[in-house]
Amino acid sequence: MKYNFLSKINSPEDVKKLSLSELTELCEEVRYKLIETVSVNGGHLASNLGAVELTVAIHKVFSSPKDQIVFDVGHQCYTHKLLTGRYDKFSTLRTKGGISGFCRPTESEHDIFFSGHSGTSVSAGLGLAAAKSINSDSGYVISVIGDGSFTGGMVYEALNNGGRSGAKHIIVLNDNKMSISENVGSFAKYLAVIRSRPEYYTFKAKTESALSKIPLGNKIAGTIYKIKTDIKNRLYSQSTFFEDLGYRYMGPVDGHNIENLCDAFESAKTVNGPVLLHVITVKGKGYEYAEKDPSIFHGISKFDIDSGEYKSSSLSYSDVFGECLCRYASEDSSICAITAAMGLGTGLRCFSDNYPDRFFDVGIAEEHAVTFACGLAKNGLKPVYAVYSTFLQRCYDQIVHDISLQKQKVVLAVDRAGFVGEDGETHHGLLDVAFLSTIPDIRIYSPCCFSQLKDDLGKALYEDEGCVAVRYPRGAENENTCELDFSNKLYSLYGDSNADNVFVTYGRLTSCGVDAVRELSAKGISVQLISLNQIKPLPEKAVELILTKQKVFFFEEGQKSGGIGEKLGSVLMEKGFKGAYSITAVEDKFAGQASIDSLLSEYGLDKDAMIKKITEK
Amino acid sequence: MKYNFLSKINSPEDVKKLSLSELTELCEEVRYKLIETVSVNGGHLASNLGAVELTVAIHKVFSSPKDQIVFDVGHQCYTHKLLTGRYDKFSTLRTKGGISGFCRPTESEHDIFFSGHSGTSVSAGLGLAAAKSINSDSGYVISVIGDGSFTGGMVYEALNNGGRSGAKHIIVLNDNKMSISENVGSFAKYLAVIRSRPEYYTFKAKTESALSKIPLGNKIAGTIYKIKTDIKNRLYSQSTFFEDLGYRYMGPVDGHNIENLCDAFESAKTVNGPVLLHVITVKGKGYEYAEKDPSIFHGISKFDIDSGEYKSSSLSYSDVFGECLCRYASEDSSICAITAAMGLGTGLRCFSDNYPDRFFDVGIAEEHAVTFACGLAKNGLKPVYAVYSTFLQRCYDQIVHDISLQKQKVVLAVDRAGFVGEDGETHHGLLDVAFLSTIPDIRIYSPCCFSQLKDDLGKALYEDEGCVAVRYPRGAENENTCELDFSNKLYSLYGDSNADNVFVTYGRLTSCGVDAVRELSAKGISVQLISLNQIKPLPEKAVELILTKQKVFFFEEGQKSGGIGEKLGSVLMEKGFKGAYSITAVEDKFAGQASIDSLLSEYGLDKDAMIKKITEK
Repeated sequence: MKYNFLSKINSPEDVKKLSLSELTELCEEVRYKLIETVSVNGGHLASNLGAVELTVAIHKVFSSPKDQIVFDVGHQCYTHKLLTGRYDKFSTLRTKGGISGFCRPTESEHDIFFSGHSGTSVSAGLGLAAAKSINSDSGYVISVIGDGSFTGGMVYEALNNGGRSGAKHIIVLNDNKMSISENVGSFAKYLAVIRSRPEYYTFKAKTESALSKIPLGNKIAGTIYKIKTDIKNRLYSQSTFFEDLGYRYMGPVDGHNIENLCDAFESAKTVNGPVLLHVITVKGKGYEYAEKDPSIFHGISKFDIDSGEYKSSSLSYSDVFGECLCRYASEDSSICAITAAMGLGTGLRCFSDNYPDRFFDVGIAEEHAVTFACGLAKNGLKPVYAVYSTFLQRCYDQIVHDISLQKQKVVLAVDRAGFVGEDGETHHGLLDVAFLSTIPDIRIYSPCCFSQLKDDLGKALYEDEGCVAVRYPRGAENENTCELDFSNKLYSLYGDSNADNVFVTYGRLTSCGVDAVRELSAKGISVQLISLNQIKPLPEKAVELILTKQKVFFFEEGQKSGGIGEKLGSVLMEKGFKGAYSITAVEDKFAGQASIDSLLSEYGLDKDAMIKKITEK
Repeated sequence: MKYNFLSKINSPEDVKKLSLSELTELCEEVRYKLIETVSVNGGHLASNLGAVELTVAIHKVFSSPKDQIVFDVGHQCYTHKLLTGRYDKFSTLRTKGGISGFCRPTESEHDIFFSGHSGTSVSAGLGLAAAKSINSDSGYVISVIGDGSFTGGMVYEALNNGGRSGAKHIIVLNDNKMSISENVGSFAKYLAVIRSRPEYYTFKAKTESALSKIPLGNKIAGTIYKIKTDIKNRLYSQSTFFEDLGYRYMGPVDGHNIENLCDAFESAKTVNGPVLLHVITVKGKGYEYAEKDPSIFHGISKFDIDSGEYKSSSLSYSDVFGECLCRYASEDSSICAITAAMGLGTGLRCFSDNYPDRFFDVGIAEEHAVTFACGLAKNGLKPVYAVYSTFLQRCYDQIVHDISLQKQKVVLAVDRAGFVGEDGETHHGLLDVAFLSTIPDIRIYSPCCFSQLKDDLGKALYEDEGCVAVRYPRGAENENTCELDFSNKLYSLYGDSNADNVFVTYGRLTSCGVDAVRELSAKGISVQLISLNQIKPLPEKAVELILTKQKVFFFEEGQKSGGIGEKLGSVLMEKGFKGAYSITAVEDKFAGQASIDSLLSEYGLDKDAMIKKITEK
């Protein structure tokens, strides 16, 4: 495809110059550029395809960055990037040093707010609008948010404030009937009801044709314009949930019709107060494979454009977790699985197919998920909440009060622990160990291979009391870990037991440790590797063993502050250890986007770095 | 008052035996008992006075614990405690070893769910109901929740799930128009609208009088009963927000009329699916001072029953923070203050009176508060979010992504850090240091006196970059801290600079340290005290100083795991410190309810414990 229009868009100003028919062509080019780039780099495709016209229309009508556009999550911000001076660099999407897959303010003045977790755009937009009002700044604030995000509570907290504040704030509800998977809950049902109401634009022609012929530009024009927009607003308005909350509701509008969209945005501008504009889009629009299977094409790796075929990844920790849980569930009818809109990613498809009555997709509602699980546990069931490490950050308080304080038996299956790769800053799971280990009585496992994961899940379900977290990385196991000595269930060993030097680590890094120890041994440097499986509480015998060593090197794929390295260091200190101790971990940093291997190398956590660490000492 | 009825209530079964007029008398006795007890022990009064009839009616109609009643927050659970076998022990309310001011499952089988933070009761109730359905258990699940909690997002996450689940779950919305202070937001406005609709019971007599004369107890009775309840249900039902979400709405019902309440609950029982019963109550009902000033009597210390007079507490950290922020705000129009329904408690009344345009009470919406603050900051304002340590747990993810990752300039004023006393388990601020310090680039101050608090606030507003937390304890300063050497802004010193022994601590414990060092000195034992003001990052010079010592004793009013003691221990270890090191902190425990002094003693953190620690070594 030739990018005749797109290649000439250097800023949103260039979008404004195009006619409606040119904008339609621009949308086709954008759409192909998205497919082309994601087919190579991977990324969020289906959601972005659905928001092409929507975004083009926003930049046609509004003036970024004076008008501030906040994209919720950023799964729909690629078009925005293409229209705001990043067409040339778009091929670097999600690569190391390249363009982020999310809005990133350090990348462009048009990226107002960094967001990788859903539901923040209304709160942020409201803050921006309130500040504009206090500062007497002009300009609009527009929050673009998908219907999936409305399953999360933060949006209602914001609506509850926005509705009464009277702030000029335009919320664009991009309703594609989907979260990552099919959207769930009462709100989704409710949207279906209002979606079916006659659209404004179906009778626009009849009611407005006369008005549109009245020329503007003279003295009377102001008044006439007011009357016109007032009529338009009335046509849009219907009594809804949103109006109960104090928002002017407009819609629904066809989200793939540029003219209708532009007209609706112009109309929204004239409202003196908060507006919710309901736009209907098709997830995956314009690419048949994505339209057919929008969940798969929500976030995808490389694929073939013509056939829609993608490489199915090799067996992952998520798969193994899902299979293992299914096996337990087949013999134990008290096991329930809970996900916050991540059934597919967390490997629960088999569970949901086989045990639909015990499977709960609660929407993007991480807090509710935990407390709901506690209700199940209180009445005798065994809930397992499968969740990505990064999203677990959202329910810290609920884990503290509802699980831990009440000694509820809830298993947290923490997926994507550690680096996740190309999704970058907002998606790495570098904090779960640090924040979970602040919680009284919690037990945390960090298995180093599939079989240890299965063991840990069994212990969590049948042996341990209270809150247990089992955390595991994105992707596949590295098979070299089978060489470890697993005779102790809480930690495993590799290498020379008489060595004075010891590598201590856990989880995915165990595999790097095995390689490093082997290579060092070949060089005549003797090191023992201790891989912690239970990382909190620290296994006493492992600590005793470490106390017998001279030099301890701790490697941690997570934040140093609050991590297990600090905890072990402090224990050694209290126990009077006189040897040398060092921690290699992520230090007070948000790691960027890059492949996992590249990140391990960058943070000194791969085999070579481990070797260097000991040979430099 | 003689407790003729109340003293004979040993379980909810005894409530069922009473006639309607006897129940009315019981309510009077309960009400007086509440006033009498709280006037001595302190506690949550106004909210409990409003829920007396409501609770009595629940126990009349439902059968706890087979029917499971979940009280949101627990600010309305005192009557429930009196009716479930705890009348005799009620005078121990909120005292060490005594009855909790919240529902505590270890205390009674009738306390289903421990909750000290608002908005969890719907999620928990839904989990309980789902489990009943999976287990084919009978019995109802009732969640009792105030309108204030509806400003929090978790409730909507739960409603979004409950509405479609079809689970038999009864939500009792106790609408007293108040959060702790006046309730805020669109939802509060909306409730005012439906509150004004004609009540069912105003025309009950006319429509139901005939029906009520039909005798029950015979074969036809079942059918007739069904017809009756069907008519009732229709009368209750009106199209509302709740119905949009899939709940059968019933109400509003006068929450101080036992007969109406019982009738409404009976009716709710007959609905096969989720129900929301809207009950109107008066906060502080029946005690004139509490009705007049329900915010003050929401949570109160000792007071005089006859005059309503209470001892105003001495100048607190909250007061000093509020005054200081006002002073800055008078000269800097970019300063904004945000609270999540805690304006009074956090000392912001002066700010809200003087700068209403820059004051934002967002409701019980801690997550939204943070992200909203980031919106303000992004557009050039200086937001200060004042929040209790325990509630800050709710917005960990937002602090990570929206403040820290984006390097927004937001000040967290963390009140009630450390032990809070009688509110117990769910309210102590023992985790903030541990979880905040996991966050990249955050700066944390923990001042040891008022003047240091003021300094820290100034630094946070005008010198430091990014996210800064200033944390301070509940209550007043101890003036002995004025003896410290404050010449370094990041830490201060007391005692013999040549001493080999050093006490390291921060915040409130500094005062205990001063007393301990002084007393030890008199005994001829030389100790230096280092009080850290900036606790993250650790001040380098303080660490250097500590490295020169022989024995380091760290005292921390917070969880050990993830705390500063571990962090320092690990740093010392990495730097090759060969001396002795010990940490005294709260170890993997939820501290109970007791006076702050008693808790400091229990956890080895007061002056005597510090002395003992060094003399025993």
